[in-house]
Amino acid sequence: MTDEIVKQFPLLQRQQDGKRLVYLDSAATTQRPQTVLDAVRDFYEQNNANPHRGVYALGERATAAYEDARTEVASFLNAPREEVIFTRNATETLNLIAYSWGLQNLKAGDKVAVTILEHHSNLIPWQQVCRATGAQLIFLYTGPDGLLSDREIEQKITKEVKLVAFTHVSNVLGMVTPVEKITARAHEVGALCVLDCAQSAPHLRLDVAKLGVDFLAFSGHKLYAPLGIGVLWGRKELLEAMPPFLTGGDMIESVREQDATWAPLPEKFEAGTQNAGGAVGLAAAIRWMQGIGFDTIARREQVVYRYAWQALSHVPHVKLYGTPSGEHAGAIAFNVEGAHPHDVASILDADAVCVRAGHHCAQPLLHHLGMTACCRASFAVYNTCADVDALVESLQKVRKWLGYGA
Amino acid sequence: MTDEIVKQFPLLQRQQDGKRLVYLDSAATTQRPQTVLDAVRDFYEQNNANPHRGVYALGERATAAYEDARTEVASFLNAPREEVIFTRNATETLNLIAYSWGLQNLKAGDKVAVTILEHHSNLIPWQQVCRATGAQLIFLYTGPDGLLSDREIEQKITKEVKLVAFTHVSNVLGMVTPVEKITARAHEVGALCVLDCAQSAPHLRLDVAKLGVDFLAFSGHKLYAPLGIGVLWGRKELLEAMPPFLTGGDMIESVREQDATWAPLPEKFEAGTQNAGGAVGLAAAIRWMQGIGFDTIARREQVVYRYAWQALSHVPHVKLYGTPSGEHAGAIAFNVEGAHPHDVASILDADAVCVRAGHHCAQPLLHHLGMTACCRASFAVYNTCADVDALVESLQKVRKWLGYGA
Repeated sequence: MTDEIVKQFPLLQRQQDGKRLVYLDSAATTQRPQTVLDAVRDFYEQNNANPHRGVYALGERATAAYEDARTEVASFLNAPREEVIFTRNATETLNLIAYSWGLQNLKAGDKVAVTILEHHSNLIPWQQVCRATGAQLIFLYTGPDGLLSDREIEQKITKEVKLVAFTHVSNVLGMVTPVEKITARAHEVGALCVLDCAQSAPHLRLDVAKLGVDFLAFSGHKLYAPLGIGVLWGRKELLEAMPPFLTGGDMIESVREQDATWAPLPEKFEAGTQNAGGAVGLAAAIRWMQGIGFDTIARREQVVYRYAWQALSHVPHVKLYGTPSGEHAGAIAFNVEGAHPHDVASILDADAVCVRAGHHCAQPLLHHLGMTACCRASFAVYNTCADVDALVESLQKVRKWLGYGA
Repeated sequence: MTDEIVKQFPLLQRQQDGKRLVYLDSAATTQRPQTVLDAVRDFYEQNNANPHRGVYALGERATAAYEDARTEVASFLNAPREEVIFTRNATETLNLIAYSWGLQNLKAGDKVAVTILEHHSNLIPWQQVCRATGAQLIFLYTGPDGLLSDREIEQKITKEVKLVAFTHVSNVLGMVTPVEKITARAHEVGALCVLDCAQSAPHLRLDVAKLGVDFLAFSGHKLYAPLGIGVLWGRKELLEAMPPFLTGGDMIESVREQDATWAPLPEKFEAGTQNAGGAVGLAAAIRWMQGIGFDTIARREQVVYRYAWQALSHVPHVKLYGTPSGEHAGAIAFNVEGAHPHDVASILDADAVCVRAGHHCAQPLLHHLGMTACCRASFAVYNTCADVDALVESLQKVRKWLGYGA
């Protein structure tokens, strides 16, 4: 099975200085299987036109390709089609919610709650909207183990809180947040929930009927799809009440010199020429995942994840962040004692092992955990235990390279 | 020469019901040459990683590919690299300027001037920002021939006008606007100029040093590049003074719980994972155009354009909009007497001739010209006089199909 999956990724067949490429940065962006690249190319070679515009047959094929992609995403999320909006990426989705819902609905005295785990993309838009509206931004803090306690959820999510924006999976620690507990508490006090699924969509089954959140965001490119396409899902009554974010072509009903009326959902939020090629690629990626089976993907990834945690925790001088208890997906954060993370990543790179080093767009989390940078190995369905072995083998050289005795 | 160019477009080799496909909707979106599709595919198969993040070799190749694309665009515009911002498309660019510059700089008593020629994407964002700030939106009207008079420019652009946002080429009439006169007058009264180059970038040489505007916008997909990538160019001192539009990863210098500081240009305006594949495709498209030569492109297009205007003006019952005098690029708008434009487009489609019918995202212009819909044939470098002949031949059948005597 393993080889069958890896074989489908052209980039993973490459060698780097004669060494097998070991790509462990999928939390930043995944690689794309042949079938996704083919689907995008086929769109441009056979069906390309501006969707929603042409009455000619080619234009209708472009529209169908784009709208079929929406149907695929809707089924992936178990959501009605009209609640699925294509954006550029999760970052744009979160900004859209902040601008369009936030500026309209927040005021002085209100609170917006985020967790200390957030990626900057689910933090700075809320800082900005709080500044603009006078609302207050508050944080749910984790323990040093990265876990959010029931007490923290209970105490911080009070009736002043109008919105809880939180990540489904930490992009640094790979830990899954207690979605059910947070949404239950949020809805108890009448707050809405925004779930950042950028890191969960590739790994966990998303079902908006079960998640209980009000909005969610994810990016195609972390899910085997091309760059430049993302998704906003939101509850219809909320999306209908919100003003549009970007305005322009195809999101209108009628336009006069001084005013305009808006098209119904989902078009209201899709101004300008839609990235139909990207949407087609995203649909192909989802179909590809379905072909393997979401349960199979999760099972494979869990095996590699647990193997990696176990193996890394036995490498001398390697410190892991977070805790192995609880549900995980995607990422493991670590440091090598006495080595700067950038040096570690560079040394691993000499063995063609790609890991990310830095603040991972989560500076407040790193500060909270008492560091400024760390390494992160992250996994997708094409990673195997052999990739972990390569990582461990290379990691064991780091301190020697840097002149330590062992 | 002609065949050599057409041959490079896979989609244009297709037949529709045994007929040669005649694509005359390039003002909506162009087709892509093989070399652009190959460049994007090569990026994903050889260099794909998240740009600006990885210190490993693959990540550095992704960064280089993305930043080389910026260099290519900068050279295309004759602009410094840091003034070139990648966006999703022209629509997003125009919204970015409206939100980021407009909300900060406009107030009651100020005026924003647009022309009646504007595409909705360069109109509704200004309606919205005027509503939010109390500024007034005013229009420069054309004559029935689609031309803007010197008097209109002089009289409307007064000292209350802080911004003139106007199109370089009408997406309906294909007529080039008097950029020099408008910018000269605008700068005389201290107003800034936003130039919508969505329709000009594929046809005219853009040189920001000569155009004299302060911001410009264009989309890759109207210029042989993939969907999902666009450009904002702006003068450095303006961009530096503007707050960011979208916030999130990679556009920051440092982030604390309650605030953040911004990265320098151009990153400040590029939140989230960049569409490196799209940028690479745009750079490939520009290189492909350079390979043909911008002068050659303009010359070829002008021949076809003049031939089309001439031929169409001789088809009985066909009414053309605009005037043949002055500079044109890209589009010709027309109606067939007694026929609804949608019917015309459908009848042409039966001959595999693709033209657009409708309001072309320019409802106020159509209202101004006394209609609600029209047909538009639009041209790119791959169109030939044979395409025009096919259009004319098919147009001659329209009234017969609809039951008119001739």
